[in-house]
Amino acid sequence: MDWIYFFDLVGTAVFALTGILAAARHNMDVFGALVLAAVTAVGGGTVRDIALGATPVFWITDPNYIYVVMLTLLLTMLFWKTPTKAPKSVLPIADACGLALFCVIGADKALSFGHDGMIAVIMGVITGVGGGVIRDILCRQVPMVLRTEIYATAAILGGIVYTLGIEFNWHYSVTAGLALLSALTLRLAALYWHLSLPIFREQQLKD
Amino acid sequence: MDWIYFFDLVGTAVFALTGILAAARHNMDVFGALVLAAVTAVGGGTVRDIALGATPVFWITDPNYIYVVMLTLLLTMLFWKTPTKAPKSVLPIADACGLALFCVIGADKALSFGHDGMIAVIMGVITGVGGGVIRDILCRQVPMVLRTEIYATAAILGGIVYTLGIEFNWHYSVTAGLALLSALTLRLAALYWHLSLPIFREQQLKD
Amino acid sequence: MDWIYFFDLVGTAVFALTGILAAARHNMDVFGALVLAAVTAVGGGTVRDIALGATPVFWITDPNYIYVVMLTLLLTMLFWKTPTKAPKSVLPIADACGLALFCVIGADKALSFGHDGMIAVIMGVITGVGGGVIRDILCRQVPMVLRTEIYATAAILGGIVYTLGIEFNWHYSVTAGLALLSALTLRLAALYWHLSLPIFREQQLKD
Repeated sequence: MDWIYFFDLVGTAVFALTGILAAARHNMDVFGALVLAAVTAVGGGTVRDIALGATPVFWITDPNYIYVVMLTLLLTMLFWKTPTKAPKSVLPIADACGLALFCVIGADKALSFGHDGMIAVIMGVITGVGGGVIRDILCRQVPMVLRTEIYATAAILGGIVYTLGIEFNWHYSVTAGLALLSALTLRLAALYWHLSLPIFREQQLKD
Repeated sequence: MDWIYFFDLVGTAVFALTGILAAARHNMDVFGALVLAAVTAVGGGTVRDIALGATPVFWITDPNYIYVVMLTLLLTMLFWKTPTKAPKSVLPIADACGLALFCVIGADKALSFGHDGMIAVIMGVITGVGGGVIRDILCRQVPMVLRTEIYATAAILGGIVYTLGIEFNWHYSVTAGLALLSALTLRLAALYWHLSLPIFREQQLKD
Repeated sequence: MDWIYFFDLVGTAVFALTGILAAARHNMDVFGALVLAAVTAVGGGTVRDIALGATPVFWITDPNYIYVVMLTLLLTMLFWKTPTKAPKSVLPIADACGLALFCVIGADKALSFGHDGMIAVIMGVITGVGGGVIRDILCRQVPMVLRTEIYATAAILGGIVYTLGIEFNWHYSVTAGLALLSALTLRLAALYWHLSLPIFREQQLKD
């Protein structure tokens, strides 16, 4: 489906942008920004492809993903000094769209390799949050996704809905649309109301 | 051998538990705990399978490992508030059993792919300690295994004994038993007497 | 070409040494030093091989790389207490040679798998800097390569020159020689004059 591919590239650009912003926060140079952008944008899908044995990984087979990352960096550099008029909330919303799309794409790829639903959900989560985890590790932070408002949970929901739809032979557009919408809605709701999962607190157990 | 598979799942549960405890120490949410548990339990074997080219990796082919991780998390959450009556030493001893078992399984897999002894030992070590290394990186710590009492060394010993046994055509149960026992004994002895390898100290060389 | 293989092993030894020095700086034990040495020396090529689907990875197929790492550790331990008479600049220069060689080897491997020029350059960079990045992550540092003087850029230049040479059918020795020389020269110039890429500084954008 063509528009899934289009949204995939949009998600790539958005995740690349979050990598560039992280690079700026750590005073990295242009190359550091390029690496963080690429790693955030294609890192999750790369881990997914490697675990599935779908090598060479997707961005080697289709270099458009790399071009999108480079273009994003170029545009960011051109407009870096321009005061942004866009409201602050644009980035998290775009990021939520990327997350929703990536989790569907990851689940789809696992199913197309003949794996069962649980693996599809896991691959959806890896695709959606993997890049951000690697970005945070490279920046020496405990990955945001491990302790933030419902984020990965939205990817899990999207993956489950998608897998159920395929399982029960719903129409493909309905399946993809519902999965995207459910992941996106949950993530946006979590952003808006600051929803969180219960936190583990250290109790009597120490090791 | 069926009981090897059983112990493998037990080792998975033990390593998952150390991941959950690490998550609690960093105030992560339930999803973070699930990720840390999974990564600690199957991370080493995943890296081994990827390096060997044995993809899709083992937990994609056999989802029982993932179910064990989930079950461990569930049980931990149920009994989280229960004051533990088990002595403190239960966890390190269980962890030592997991280590001994994982190093044998890793070496066995490398040998079954036709690689030589040194690669088998390396794969045993990667399987045994890889998960803990990724857990510590995600928690932003210098991996414990790089600076603790003899830990990886026990995995090396287990791998060497196992490889020798296979090489010299010992009976399989003897080989596996001896390898397990030697790794376990060395690790427990290191725990008990706080044995360490010599430490590198920064000398005149700087870079 | 035999001397490329020879230089490859020399580069492996040099990168292993930087891993050992990092281990010493963090008071790791002998096993930690071995892991850091191995990871720095073969980590980049391992990631390259995995992404390309060239598994089992190169050091499984040719264990000489592991032997070189072990030998480097052994020699370092033997001469650890000997006051070094070599000038301080020997290590960075050797490291620059390793970088230049690894980027050519990485690009060459990608091209030999039939991938296009951009992928070849990326694989050259991954081979050249990947090991150092993993070393720095294990030591809990923001990878040096993301914020230092021109380092990865030298690997990019080497990869580009090599790819152009192969593309335009230059004589192989000329191509390899020019690529090595350009990467090496740029890196040494960056070292000598402290050249840097422009740094991203956090502006009005926050996320």
